[in-house]
Parts: sequence; C-alpha cells; structure tokens
Amino acid sequence: MHPKQTLSVDAMGGDDAPGIVIDGVAEFLSARPDLSVLLHGDEALLAPLVAAKPAMAGRVTVLHAAEKITSDMKPSQALRRGKGTSMWNAVEAVKDGRAGASVSAGNTGALMAISMLALRKMEGVHRPAMTAVWPTLRGRTIILDVGANVEADAQQLVTFAIMGEAFARATLGIARPTVGLLNIGSEEMKGHEEVREAHEWLRAAGLNIDYRGFIEGDDISAGEVDVVVTDGFTGNVALKTGEGVARMLASRMRDAFTENLVSKAGAALAMGGLKKLRSLMDPSNVNGGVLLGLGGISVKSHGGADARGFARACEMAADLAGSDFQTEIAANLARIGTGGVAAE
Amino acid sequence: MHPKQTLSVDAMGGDDAPGIVIDGVAEFLSARPDLSVLLHGDEALLAPLVAAKPAMAGRVTVLHAAEKITSDMKPSQALRRGKGTSMWNAVEAVKDGRAGASVSAGNTGALMAISMLALRKMEGVHRPAMTAVWPTLRGRTIILDVGANVEADAQQLVTFAIMGEAFARATLGIARPTVGLLNIGSEEMKGHEEVREAHEWLRAAGLNIDYRGFIEGDDISAGEVDVVVTDGFTGNVALKTGEGVARMLASRMRDAFTENLVSKAGAALAMGGLKKLRSLMDPSNVNGGVLLGLGGISVKSHGGADARGFARACEMAADLAGSDFQTEIAANLARIGTGGVAAE
Repeated sequence: MHPKQTLSVDAMGGDDAPGIVIDGVAEFLSARPDLSVLLHGDEALLAPLVAAKPAMAGRVTVLHAAEKITSDMKPSQALRRGKGTSMWNAVEAVKDGRAGASVSAGNTGALMAISMLALRKMEGVHRPAMTAVWPTLRGRTIILDVGANVEADAQQLVTFAIMGEAFARATLGIARPTVGLLNIGSEEMKGHEEVREAHEWLRAAGLNIDYRGFIEGDDISAGEVDVVVTDGFTGNVALKTGEGVARMLASRMRDAFTENLVSKAGAALAMGGLKKLRSLMDPSNVNGGVLLGLGGISVKSHGGADARGFARACEMAADLAGSDFQTEIAANLARIGTGGVAAE
Repeated sequence: MHPKQTLSVDAMGGDDAPGIVIDGVAEFLSARPDLSVLLHGDEALLAPLVAAKPAMAGRVTVLHAAEKITSDMKPSQALRRGKGTSMWNAVEAVKDGRAGASVSAGNTGALMAISMLALRKMEGVHRPAMTAVWPTLRGRTIILDVGANVEADAQQLVTFAIMGEAFARATLGIARPTVGLLNIGSEEMKGHEEVREAHEWLRAAGLNIDYRGFIEGDDISAGEVDVVVTDGFTGNVALKTGEGVARMLASRMRDAFTENLVSKAGAALAMGGLKKLRSLMDPSNVNGGVLLGLGGISVKSHGGADARGFARACEMAADLAGSDFQTEIAANLARIGTGGVAAE
C-alpha cells in the first residue's frame, strides 16, 4: 500500500493503552476502508487484541517494540533512552517513508522531542508550533502555538500563520481559511511589539493567505476566524482557560439538572438538544494536536482520550497525509523569500 | 457624612447612562443604608431622575458637570480635554477626600488615565494593575492584571500578587486568600523567565501571603486559588477567552432547549436549577474592575452592565473604601524593602 495511505501508530502511549488505542484504530479503519496501519508495541500483548477485531484483518501490521516511553520521562531522557520504544518506532516509520503520518497518545514532551529529532524542521521554519482544534459557534477553529514554544517573535508568528492556514485547509476542509492574530485590542496601537510587527508583515508580505487582522480572546469561540495565531504561552493559557470554563459550566449544568425530581424530569425531556450540547463539549470530538513545521506528520492524541477520540486523531493524521499541506506551507514560506521569514 | 461612607459616581458613563446608573445607585443605596453618593453629570437631566427615586432622598448629591468623556476618546485626549467632565470630577472627589471611592462605567482607557493622573501611584508601585472577578466552581476568584499593562517583569508580578491578595480580602471577604501564578506547566522549569523569577521571589521574600505556586489556565475556573497573578496581555486574553466560551455555551444551551416542544417543556421543568446556572453565567454578578496600586480607589463598571451590575460595582467600591486594603498593600510592599520590589 502507498505510504500516504498508511498510518504509523504508537499502541503503548496514553492513559488506557493499548486497549483504547486498539479500539480507536478499529473504529478509524471501519470508516476509512482505503487505509492501513502499522501498530508499534508489545507484540505478545497486541496480537490477540488485533485478532479479535474483524475491522483490522489484513490491514494492521503489528511491529514489535519491547520498550515504551513512560508518562514521567523528560524530553531529554526520551531522546537518550527512547530508541526502540513504540513511540520512537512509530515516528521513525514516517521518517523512513513507510507511513504518511504517525499518531501517539503518549508523553507530549517526549513525542515533540522525538518528532523534531527524527523528522527535522522544514526549511524556513525556525520553531515548530503545536496546534489545537477549538469548537466554536460556527464550527471549528485551529489555534497555534499552544505550547511548543514559550515565546515567539514576529517572524515566528508569521510562520505560524502560514502553517496554520495550510493545516486548516487540510483538516477542516475549508478552501481558503481566514487567519487572525490574537491581541488584547482591535486598535492597532495595542499589544506586544512582536504582535504589531507580525500584523504589518502579514498585511504587507504578499502571502497567499486571507489575513483578517487582530482578534481578541472572545472572538475565538465566536468563530471569527478559522485560524488563531499566537505565541505558545498565550495559546496554552487560552486553551486551558477555555477548557476550564467549559468544565465548570458542564458541572454546574449537571447540578442544575439533578437538583430535584422535577428538574431531572425536565432534563430527561430536553435530552435531544442536550445530547448535541454534550457532543459539542466532548473533547474527544476535537482530539488531535500536530507539531507543525516538521519534515513529516506526527499527531498527538490526548492521553486521556477515549476510543472515539483516538479515532479522530487518526482521521486527522490521514487527512494530513493525504493532503498537500506541506508543499503549500513551503510555497508560502518561499513567497517571503530567504531574506524574510525563512531566515533568522 | 464620613468620606469613607461616600461614593463618587460618574452618572454619564456607560452604554445606557444615566438611566442605568441611577437605577443601579438606587439599588445599591437600598441595600446599604449607611452610605451616600455624590452624583456627577448633567444636573438638568439628573435632578428629576433622582427625585423619582425614594431610596435616594437626602442621600444623593447631584454635582453638575457640563461635559462628559465619550466612548471613542483616546486616553491622551481625555487627559487634555477631560477636566470638568463627569468622569474627571468623580475621580477628583476621591483625590480631594470628599469620597472614599469612585465608580464609572465610561471609557476604560480614559478612566485609567484620569485615575492615574489624579490619584497617583502608591509608593513602591511601578505599574498599576486592572482586576477582574471570575466565577469559579468554588466561588469567586480575582485575576490581575487584565490589561492595564502589556508586559510585566518579575517584580511587577510580585507587586500584583501583593495588591491582589489585599484586594481579595477586602472584596471577597476571605481572611487569608490563596495566591497562584499563571503559567503553562506546573513543573518549575516551564514558562517565561519573568514568571519563574517572580515564583522564586514570592516563595522566598517572607511576604505575609499564602502563595501556592504555579497554576494553569484550567485551574482558574476550578477555583484552585483566590487570586490569579499574570501579566496584562495574558490576563486579558484569558478573561476574554473565558467570556467567549461561556457565551458560546449559553447560546448552544438556548438552542438545545428551544429545539422542539418537548425540549421546551423539559427546559420549563428544569427552570429552578437553570436559573442558578444563568445567574452564575450572568456577568452583572461579577461586575467591577479596579485599577490597583493608586493612592485612591477608582472602580470601573462594565459599559454594558445593567442596573444590578452597576449596583455590584458600587458595592465593591464601598467594600474597598471601608477596608484597610491600601495599608495592607503598603505593609507587604515594605516587607520587600526599598531594595526589592519597591524600587525599579
């Protein structure tokens, strides 16, 4: 099978591995009959699990890895001792061209370090950026960087915009995604110097991007733009703050509906609409982060995601592997020229 | 009446001034029979409105101001042309010792500029910080800075912690508020250098503060600490992002409940619990921001707040005016010593 149609999966990463991973891959393969999977991990453990899944028959190859990356391992340890682990082998299959993308629910820092080492940075990218998918009033929005870097200068923000735009086209299926720069005021005088400089750059650089200017925090959930660009510190705080608010309100909503018998009856009647709301608030529907700016695709699934969440991360990996997003990024980086964003 | 028991109110600021302001002040005075109000604005407009409110009889003094600060005025314009406006006069009454605190729902930037000019910075405070109140799973949390400054170095973050802690005691009624520093990871190696430095400082400085270390974005809504300390860029993004998520979920919840007749009936039955949820999500319950670090108290009400929201901002101003929070801040700043946070 063509490598673009093959995913490389770390079966041993995540809170409930390998069970959740196997279930997720099976769900993914049922929906995508054109694809196959390389499954890295403890063969003795995995073989019977795979054999029990009819959807996997003839489409999953188990590749033995005796060791795994643990959740408490530091990135530096993962680089020193990680060779031969299921995570390492999953990423290496992408590097070697045996798969179009890898998926792991394991240790984020370790996955970023191993992916950077194995897949290397794209030419013209100084710092890769981590993406997240954000449910909005209008659909879904991509936000980056959500924590790969602590700071970002103007040219890194411009690079993030280029990468995020191509990523949104590949994964959200939007032909021409809109891009906004996160700031604290819509007037041009506000905000960090880096943000204002990136703003001028994005307006003037002649990139093939639909750049819409500054947005503020509340515009993210409103779905004002398809791609929100920010530095890794701000993006990580925004993402986790948003998750926290959603979790608090979900908890309060449960309280409201279980307060007494009458409210319980009401909740039962309103169930149809509430199911949609729950589905919107369900993190497994938007699972999957990608470290953009590397020479290959490495998708991070949330460590606590369920089988459906893991299947979503696999879908994202497959969408990216089957798209032209890497060449689109390269084309826009070239538009800036080697004297611009590409060089530092 | 003692100035501490007198509030100075800008009657002309905010989207629906002066009507909302009059209603809010009346609601506030009904709940606080020990207090009185100086009301600044167009006397011809205000006098009949005040006369129509029995709660205001003998407790509200209308002070004529012919001009007002408009919402599109820049801070620099407000400083040049603002003298004699209702906002200016409201703040000046605090400076002159005629009132214990001022409240305005007008132009934020103008109010900050006028307040800084009139009330000046406290000794030892290099940059004032804007507060916001955040509803959490456990109650309410104070977050600062939410936008008075774009950046903050380590010693400014320490000053914010000192000011926020005293502010939380005065307004939340918590004897010993807990304080956390917003960061992107709980390991000590993560985050900006400024944040890590402030962390060491807060642990080592011998301040009379219950400092709990780093927190992450999702800890805010969980109510992990009573005071969240961060720079103005990050704080503003976090606040607006949280508001955006709450607004999106409220909108989706309305959709869920009005989808069909059955869900409408369910919503009607569950109404008791839902009312509590609505009240939690109602911004007027947590209205009122204060620019901390000045020589007097100037409270900003949200420009779109309703009468109850404005009344809440007045309550906050009265709580602060009646507390020792300014002297508590001065005491903790002195603990650092003039060679530490106080000097720059």
